[in-house]
Amino acid sequence: MNILIINGPNLNLLGVREKNIYGDTSFEEYFNTLKNEFPSDNLTYFQSNIEGEIVTELQNNGFGNVDGIVLNAGAYTHTSLAVADAISAIKVPVIEVHISNIFNREAVRHNSFIAPVCMGSISGFGLNSYKLAIIALKK
Amino acid sequence: MNILIINGPNLNLLGVREKNIYGDTSFEEYFNTLKNEFPSDNLTYFQSNIEGEIVTELQNNGFGNVDGIVLNAGAYTHTSLAVADAISAIKVPVIEVHISNIFNREAVRHNSFIAPVCMGSISGFGLNSYKLAIIALKK
Amino acid sequence: MNILIINGPNLNLLGVREKNIYGDTSFEEYFNTLKNEFPSDNLTYFQSNIEGEIVTELQNNGFGNVDGIVLNAGAYTHTSLAVADAISAIKVPVIEVHISNIFNREAVRHNSFIAPVCMGSISGFGLNSYKLAIIALKK
Amino acid sequence: MNILIINGPNLNLLGVREKNIYGDTSFEEYFNTLKNEFPSDNLTYFQSNIEGEIVTELQNNGFGNVDGIVLNAGAYTHTSLAVADAISAIKVPVIEVHISNIFNREAVRHNSFIAPVCMGSISGFGLNSYKLAIIALKK
Amino acid sequence: MNILIINGPNLNLLGVREKNIYGDTSFEEYFNTLKNEFPSDNLTYFQSNIEGEIVTELQNNGFGNVDGIVLNAGAYTHTSLAVADAISAIKVPVIEVHISNIFNREAVRHNSFIAPVCMGSISGFGLNSYKLAIIALKK
Amino acid sequence: MNILIINGPNLNLLGVREKNIYGDTSFEEYFNTLKNEFPSDNLTYFQSNIEGEIVTELQNNGFGNVDGIVLNAGAYTHTSLAVADAISAIKVPVIEVHISNIFNREAVRHNSFIAPVCMGSISGFGLNSYKLAIIALKK
Amino acid sequence: MNILIINGPNLNLLGVREKNIYGDTSFEEYFNTLKNEFPSDNLTYFQSNIEGEIVTELQNNGFGNVDGIVLNAGAYTHTSLAVADAISAIKVPVIEVHISNIFNREAVRHNSFIAPVCMGSISGFGLNSYKLAIIALKK
Amino acid sequence: MNILIINGPNLNLLGVREKNIYGDTSFEEYFNTLKNEFPSDNLTYFQSNIEGEIVTELQNNGFGNVDGIVLNAGAYTHTSLAVADAISAIKVPVIEVHISNIFNREAVRHNSFIAPVCMGSISGFGLNSYKLAIIALKK
Amino acid sequence: MNILIINGPNLNLLGVREKNIYGDTSFEEYFNTLKNEFPSDNLTYFQSNIEGEIVTELQNNGFGNVDGIVLNAGAYTHTSLAVADAISAIKVPVIEVHISNIFNREAVRHNSFIAPVCMGSISGFGLNSYKLAIIALKK
Amino acid sequence: MNILIINGPNLNLLGVREKNIYGDTSFEEYFNTLKNEFPSDNLTYFQSNIEGEIVTELQNNGFGNVDGIVLNAGAYTHTSLAVADAISAIKVPVIEVHISNIFNREAVRHNSFIAPVCMGSISGFGLNSYKLAIIALKK
Amino acid sequence: MNILIINGPNLNLLGVREKNIYGDTSFEEYFNTLKNEFPSDNLTYFQSNIEGEIVTELQNNGFGNVDGIVLNAGAYTHTSLAVADAISAIKVPVIEVHISNIFNREAVRHNSFIAPVCMGSISGFGLNSYKLAIIALKK
Amino acid sequence: MNILIINGPNLNLLGVREKNIYGDTSFEEYFNTLKNEFPSDNLTYFQSNIEGEIVTELQNNGFGNVDGIVLNAGAYTHTSLAVADAISAIKVPVIEVHISNIFNREAVRHNSFIAPVCMGSISGFGLNSYKLAIIALKK
Repeated sequence: MNILIINGPNLNLLGVREKNIYGDTSFEEYFNTLKNEFPSDNLTYFQSNIEGEIVTELQNNGFGNVDGIVLNAGAYTHTSLAVADAISAIKVPVIEVHISNIFNREAVRHNSFIAPVCMGSISGFGLNSYKLAIIALKK
Repeated sequence: MNILIINGPNLNLLGVREKNIYGDTSFEEYFNTLKNEFPSDNLTYFQSNIEGEIVTELQNNGFGNVDGIVLNAGAYTHTSLAVADAISAIKVPVIEVHISNIFNREAVRHNSFIAPVCMGSISGFGLNSYKLAIIALKK
Repeated sequence: MNILIINGPNLNLLGVREKNIYGDTSFEEYFNTLKNEFPSDNLTYFQSNIEGEIVTELQNNGFGNVDGIVLNAGAYTHTSLAVADAISAIKVPVIEVHISNIFNREAVRHNSFIAPVCMGSISGFGLNSYKLAIIALKK
Repeated sequence: MNILIINGPNLNLLGVREKNIYGDTSFEEYFNTLKNEFPSDNLTYFQSNIEGEIVTELQNNGFGNVDGIVLNAGAYTHTSLAVADAISAIKVPVIEVHISNIFNREAVRHNSFIAPVCMGSISGFGLNSYKLAIIALKK
Repeated sequence: MNILIINGPNLNLLGVREKNIYGDTSFEEYFNTLKNEFPSDNLTYFQSNIEGEIVTELQNNGFGNVDGIVLNAGAYTHTSLAVADAISAIKVPVIEVHISNIFNREAVRHNSFIAPVCMGSISGFGLNSYKLAIIALKK
Repeated sequence: MNILIINGPNLNLLGVREKNIYGDTSFEEYFNTLKNEFPSDNLTYFQSNIEGEIVTELQNNGFGNVDGIVLNAGAYTHTSLAVADAISAIKVPVIEVHISNIFNREAVRHNSFIAPVCMGSISGFGLNSYKLAIIALKK
Repeated sequence: MNILIINGPNLNLLGVREKNIYGDTSFEEYFNTLKNEFPSDNLTYFQSNIEGEIVTELQNNGFGNVDGIVLNAGAYTHTSLAVADAISAIKVPVIEVHISNIFNREAVRHNSFIAPVCMGSISGFGLNSYKLAIIALKK
Repeated sequence: MNILIINGPNLNLLGVREKNIYGDTSFEEYFNTLKNEFPSDNLTYFQSNIEGEIVTELQNNGFGNVDGIVLNAGAYTHTSLAVADAISAIKVPVIEVHISNIFNREAVRHNSFIAPVCMGSISGFGLNSYKLAIIALKK
Repeated sequence: MNILIINGPNLNLLGVREKNIYGDTSFEEYFNTLKNEFPSDNLTYFQSNIEGEIVTELQNNGFGNVDGIVLNAGAYTHTSLAVADAISAIKVPVIEVHISNIFNREAVRHNSFIAPVCMGSISGFGLNSYKLAIIALKK
Repeated sequence: MNILIINGPNLNLLGVREKNIYGDTSFEEYFNTLKNEFPSDNLTYFQSNIEGEIVTELQNNGFGNVDGIVLNAGAYTHTSLAVADAISAIKVPVIEVHISNIFNREAVRHNSFIAPVCMGSISGFGLNSYKLAIIALKK
Repeated sequence: MNILIINGPNLNLLGVREKNIYGDTSFEEYFNTLKNEFPSDNLTYFQSNIEGEIVTELQNNGFGNVDGIVLNAGAYTHTSLAVADAISAIKVPVIEVHISNIFNREAVRHNSFIAPVCMGSISGFGLNSYKLAIIALKK
Repeated sequence: MNILIINGPNLNLLGVREKNIYGDTSFEEYFNTLKNEFPSDNLTYFQSNIEGEIVTELQNNGFGNVDGIVLNAGAYTHTSLAVADAISAIKVPVIEVHISNIFNREAVRHNSFIAPVCMGSISGFGLNSYKLAIIALKK
């Protein structure tokens, strides 16, 4: 399967700097682990801090370029109707993931614009949330 | 008259792909029709998925480059105070258009940041909403 | 086309008295202008301050007597579920118009009972809103 | 018993026109059926699209002209404090009826100004709601 | 001075019937008392249960026919934007009166559409509220 | 017809104790009266204070064991999504009844989880509400 | 009659300073006018910026020292439950007055803690509101 | 690992009856499939329609009897603080699962009492949600 | 006096397990202490995780079996209208107690269905809250 | 122990005047009873109608002058963040008491600024609430 | 320049007592530092726990006695419309300061009655906020 | 010190065009003034209309490149959780500034996503707000 992982704003900071805060693993390192765990699949990765670039990436891959998309939209989960509209418009299934349990954080993070238009949601399992999403897509 | 049409996020998908869903007409094709219908006017067209690029386009054309702006801000209609601030700051009249009737869709689409600062609003007439907006500007 | 224009409460004051406030044009004068602009169409006009009479007028013309209705429900836009139900019940398309931009007025005027059940909405273009609505119907 | 049935706005459309939508039975036809089912009672019927005429009808019959009133206030159920005040002011018991189940329709129809001041409420049984209300009154 | 008193829905029941409930004085009787108390003024009286008729009465008298209007809009106080719009549109000062203290009744009666557009408000003094309003107008 | 009556929490207190408060009739006595009034029907009765037992009773009878269910869910009317889900899941029609008029009680009792998924609702007629519901089912 | 006028915070600024803003009349001057208009009555006056002193003044005069109290609680109208409790506790009738029409000011001034426990309310008539309140008390 | 699956109200109907609606697979059948997929783990299963029994089951297994709990609380997800308190009180990690995407259903299902106190949440993947939760626990 | 203590969901965990978290004292141990402190009174104790069983226990003891009830309804304090209805229906005085100060916990715990129908409330004094309630009852 | 009792606005009216309303016991009389019941403790008493004086009294006694404070803040319970801040700032434990059950009064009295920062709350037991608070402090 | 600093309730506790909590610096000590830093200006200081005294102090200095006022209203920031009204009424510019960042504290502290009527706001810089405000005034 | 000033959307219009509206000073001119006022510090400046570019700029400078950041996020203050997350993630202190007093503008501008995660906030002092922020940082 061709699977695209999209990360939203501030997720580029994971493990790169401030390792004591964000853990020792950068997403790039974790991405290599993931590729090793799914050797027969083609995994690609995209990150942007810009809402509209995430919309465009979803559009560019949402009509058959890939077989599924794993999306951690970060803060745009809670503020972006544009990303939600892009997910509604495309054909490829999208799974929402979150590293932390967004439901025990501040109230503004309890609402997700994206959840209603995704195939499903996985949150709270750390970086392992991405792996579970890929397993779900492969099913 | 010099008239600029600005389309917001996901409106680039109109009629290009998924024609069974979005209709057979791409906005580019419709834009040609519009130019034919108003042969004595100079119509230009801009689309972006990025909120800040729409702000910049409004700034660049809002002090006399064009005589009027027709804006379908898509999802940013409902989430972007920055676009609304740009409209308030510029001098050129802006008309809000929507292809669908946003008032019989989900509740989040009933609030428009943009409507209070536009000259007027037109929604629900399909692509014809753009033509009505140009007629209104020419008046 | 047979087109009916319905005006709601207080719109009978337009231009008749207090011309310095409401402009020099009474709706009757404007209506004559409209008839001249659309010579091949049959335009009729109805005004009432009574919510229920607007319901009845919609019922009487909504099953084929006319080809389209242009409705400025005035204050009933924001308080009348009965008018909205009448629009839902009839077959003829109804277009909502407003002279002013209702979205930059008080909060109570931001909600429209009528918008969700109309074909489309046009607001903010002064009396020209009516003409744009007729063009939209003729399309 | 002398029983008055009052129907509010748009209920005059029942079965008269658009029979495929509203069913084959006009309220007048159904009213004849009702009269046959309760031959020893005196049933009368009033319909108006005008809120204030319903207020007046309640006043005219609410001090002993009839023994009970069956009221389907239609959209005024959800917007009319004036009708509710009339029910509070009169002496004759009033029963609220609805043809459809108003609780699985839009949120605006979940609130009833009228329910708190009626003797009881019956909704969701089609035209049969009226018959049940008469049985309740006769009890 | 020429002063018009307008009473809204259900206020026609005052003291006519159910004297044990509403007091012994009908508004007509009280109106005669009022006329005696202000012998040099010309007092007229209008009552309607119909929202739109109150709008029309305000329009017909609001451009100089009378010098001031005393309005008890009854339940329309809390539901009628149309009456409020009529008061805003006319030139003659309007004073809002209520017989009871509306602020210790149900929550729906705490909001007044009419208060913001009236010259002033008087509530809670029984029928005496009307007399106080006339004194205020004469000032 | 086979008809099941389900009563929710605290309805077992009816008329058994505190007869001066709840009336002289226990529900068991009333149930005998009901059986006499519908001699050709098979009426059965179930009461529980436990939300989940009401869910189970609905499941056990909701696929053809009975022809209709009359449900007075008591306080669970206003707090139980589980009972509402059970009603949605089963095939047999369910009618919501209430002894008192729930709409003139505290605000928490104005919302019903159950009403939207029932066939219809009857409230405010005392114990007679049950009889009306059976008549409605038999129709 | 013995009548006490109580003014709340900032009302001591009336007409003393900033006469161009607050008018030429200080409350003390107006109070002299009032005393002349009601020569047979005994009028006294109290002002404080301190919520608790207004509570104490109401207590000290509310059990028969005076025959009625005219209260303009200023900002405490909208924030003081303690003043409202004092009014509820005392025996002497209290009338709420406001110089301006509080209903066309900011939303925070539309709620009055005091109105529900006063005999009546008068607002919007300038300093004349006090005189109307005295007339109402004398009635 | 010892893993307990707890299902809440109405989930006992899955695939047992109404197979055309709920799919052909009963949860018992699916549970056998799950046991085959995780042959080295000890899976147990509990279902109840009663909120308090789910609380008790969590208590009985939450201090070391099992290594992890997969919980689909059904409707109690949205109404039970007691279940949430039980999860907070126990030591064993709990994962919230839902068969459907609860975020594109009615608003009442968007709030989860349980999500904030669970380790993580998985929703929208059909019965496969349970399998993903077990994989997450085993990680 | 005969006094019944009722504990709601999860309160059976007090001090039994996880003593480092919940303190060293089980409620059973504390209950023995209480019995020693009130040797002339007859204290009994009931605990259930099931809402409906608490309703039943209140019913069974609320008509004279005991002289007073001390109720810590735990999470049902905030979600159970059924328990509140049971308290309203019975004759015996009920005192609400809480071990912790519920007002400095999450917002959902600030609302109590039970408080308005209890004789009084005591919260925040640890297990001592129960003793204070018994003293209050004995008064 | 040294224990200070603070009473807020209007509580000085207790039993002094209007004995038929507030009961025969003034707080001073009750305070003497209390002193007799706790002969080995030093009880002092302070009352003020002024919010800021209660803040100052809390500050003056909150750093060791007394061992505990019993506070009935009256109406300031529901409106005073300043009193709440004083309680947070001092070291001595404060117990909130209310004579009546504040939870079955108007909605504005259901919120307490003070409860979250007090050690505990006792309400609904009449004057006995003070005694229970002293027992709680002595524990 | 003549500059007045006003501190509201509980700010008298700063650094006087509980130095481990509030820091070692009393406001009086800090005020001496401030006077040294602005040797050519005349700084005065006022503190009160009483809302109305702050109103009076603002009135006494707001018409030219000083050139500017620095106000930390403490808890009255969030509850006092009377202080806000005083600021609106006076002529001298007022700057709102807060020692802590009020926006990351409880929700009740996010609303400021005072901010809209002040010249500007400075919060979150510790005692340094006062110095910044004086610099701003001197500009 | 190395200090970075970041300006958000539409702030590039300051003083460049429409000088009659926005004042004569462009931000670039003001920035030169600032550099002159702080000759020993290294000031840099960044502006973008694009939310994600502001996020990236904060990330690129937030781990030691500069010693402090002054941020006027413009409209993104009120809509961008992504910018707030970036501020939370970085190490360098950030001060929120606004040219106007945002608290006396429309309600949507009263909420700031950014304020809770900044060191402090300064608003309402015109361009001088930036200078005050630099002084605060240097402290």
